[in-house]
Amino acid sequence: MLFEGEEEFTGAHIERFVEQRPDYLKGVTSALVLDTGMFAPGLPTICTGLRGIITSEVTVRGANRDLHSGEFGGAAPNPLQALSEIIASLKTRAGRVRIPGFYAGVRKPDKLEKASWSRLPFNEHVYREGLGAAGLVGDRRYPVVHRLWAQPTLEINGIAGGFAGEGFKTVIPSIATAKISLRLVPDMNPDAIAAAFREFVKKVAPPHVHTDVQIISASPAMVVDTSHEAIKCAATAFHQVFSAEAAYVRQGGSIPIAGTFASVLGVPVLITGFSLPDCNMHAPNENLDLGNFYKGIEAVGTYFARLGGV
Amino acid sequence: MLFEGEEEFTGAHIERFVEQRPDYLKGVTSALVLDTGMFAPGLPTICTGLRGIITSEVTVRGANRDLHSGEFGGAAPNPLQALSEIIASLKTRAGRVRIPGFYAGVRKPDKLEKASWSRLPFNEHVYREGLGAAGLVGDRRYPVVHRLWAQPTLEINGIAGGFAGEGFKTVIPSIATAKISLRLVPDMNPDAIAAAFREFVKKVAPPHVHTDVQIISASPAMVVDTSHEAIKCAATAFHQVFSAEAAYVRQGGSIPIAGTFASVLGVPVLITGFSLPDCNMHAPNENLDLGNFYKGIEAVGTYFARLGGV
Repeated sequence: MLFEGEEEFTGAHIERFVEQRPDYLKGVTSALVLDTGMFAPGLPTICTGLRGIITSEVTVRGANRDLHSGEFGGAAPNPLQALSEIIASLKTRAGRVRIPGFYAGVRKPDKLEKASWSRLPFNEHVYREGLGAAGLVGDRRYPVVHRLWAQPTLEINGIAGGFAGEGFKTVIPSIATAKISLRLVPDMNPDAIAAAFREFVKKVAPPHVHTDVQIISASPAMVVDTSHEAIKCAATAFHQVFSAEAAYVRQGGSIPIAGTFASVLGVPVLITGFSLPDCNMHAPNENLDLGNFYKGIEAVGTYFARLGGV
Repeated sequence: MLFEGEEEFTGAHIERFVEQRPDYLKGVTSALVLDTGMFAPGLPTICTGLRGIITSEVTVRGANRDLHSGEFGGAAPNPLQALSEIIASLKTRAGRVRIPGFYAGVRKPDKLEKASWSRLPFNEHVYREGLGAAGLVGDRRYPVVHRLWAQPTLEINGIAGGFAGEGFKTVIPSIATAKISLRLVPDMNPDAIAAAFREFVKKVAPPHVHTDVQIISASPAMVVDTSHEAIKCAATAFHQVFSAEAAYVRQGGSIPIAGTFASVLGVPVLITGFSLPDCNMHAPNENLDLGNFYKGIEAVGTYFARLGGV
């Protein structure tokens, strides 16, 4: 048995170890990642999928220098205008990504997941109110958790260009940039999607600017097979300890080592944890419910015992 | 006669003096602003118009806090996406501003100006090459100088939101802002255009975000009547001194005091100057051609003499 607790310190060593020393890991039958939480108090939760991610930077260049918008405005190209037009072209107003083939590889969640999602204590109105948002976005044919866990996304994470500080400068900037990320779900191919994204940006970019797309990273989504004995063992063990049926959820974010365990070792990965939604993860007053601490120990022990008996 | 040379130190005193002490300025018949330059070497140049300007800040709010784009992407609204969609909606892809009534008040340049513009030593290809731009923008029915001097514009001067520095942060920002300016030409009404701009932004803003439009300033364009005796005097005097017919140009930017002279004193304003296009205004190696310095003195003297004889 191999334990590792370095995740918050980059987790670089376990990643390298798994990739470079398969000889040490022969015969491994399953992996456990205790890095997620419970969907609600009293509800043991198994994470069955993580989205992959592509990160990129789009750079738009107009003139070879910053220009005075009085002197040149009306004839000189404006990279911020062009960048906005590019971004607006990437999605329909209903929020559907317009990159050709973007949704072609999307695998539907399995029956067990869909059934579990429909039973989750989730209220869209409460969710929106909690965000303080005027409205939610995304494909309304799918419930919110489906959109967050089983649909790919394209998000603008940052834009910079011109002068946006206190006061006003009538500048037409030479350069504008946007940080854009795409979240991927099974079975989307990160490299193919990255190439299609790059091509589509080039296609919708106005001809009067120079547009460059840099792909920074591209990693696939992962999904756990809920019919695997290890996952079934966990569900049974958790039910027994918490006296509640385990919920199957996914995560919108990524835990790279989980994907490495699955792809390099070829084993099922149980992703779970016992913190609550209000645990203030990575923030002041981070907390773990003591009852969950003890029940978590019992649940993992019961899981191991059951798994050993398989 | 009243001289003032404080322009580069804000010019606040002359502005206040003209507005608050009209008693001192009774009987003034004309004003001279020596703050522009010659369009080309050897070409005495009279500026017959300055664009007005509206400055504004558009703020788009999504959730009540920055969000993780993995955890919330796909359901939570993204202010940067919404802001880009708003900006892309403000113009057609051909660059025409879509605010209703935007072009309704635009006065055409007069015959003398149009004739003078067609004779200017201006080459669009050289202009574009000098900017290093892939292409120019604006209404192709008009020559570039017409677009710069007699057409209104809408320019994005800055955008801020999310993380746009070195590296990557998968954030959905709570707020995104854009600095947007509009250049106005005669006879557009700044207040009416500002109101129409605000209303149009609200109309095209996606319903899932909160959008706020703050108008920072709004000032009208000014245009000089080329048929006025003072302007004719200047043209004749400049022709005599430089042995070249004076060119009539406008400026895309603004010189507030020129507008104040015209509106408060109700006098014609001769806007001219003798620097060359490569004078590096406000930059290292700022320069004034010595020949132009002496000819400029002679030209202004000749102008005053002729004006006195009117």
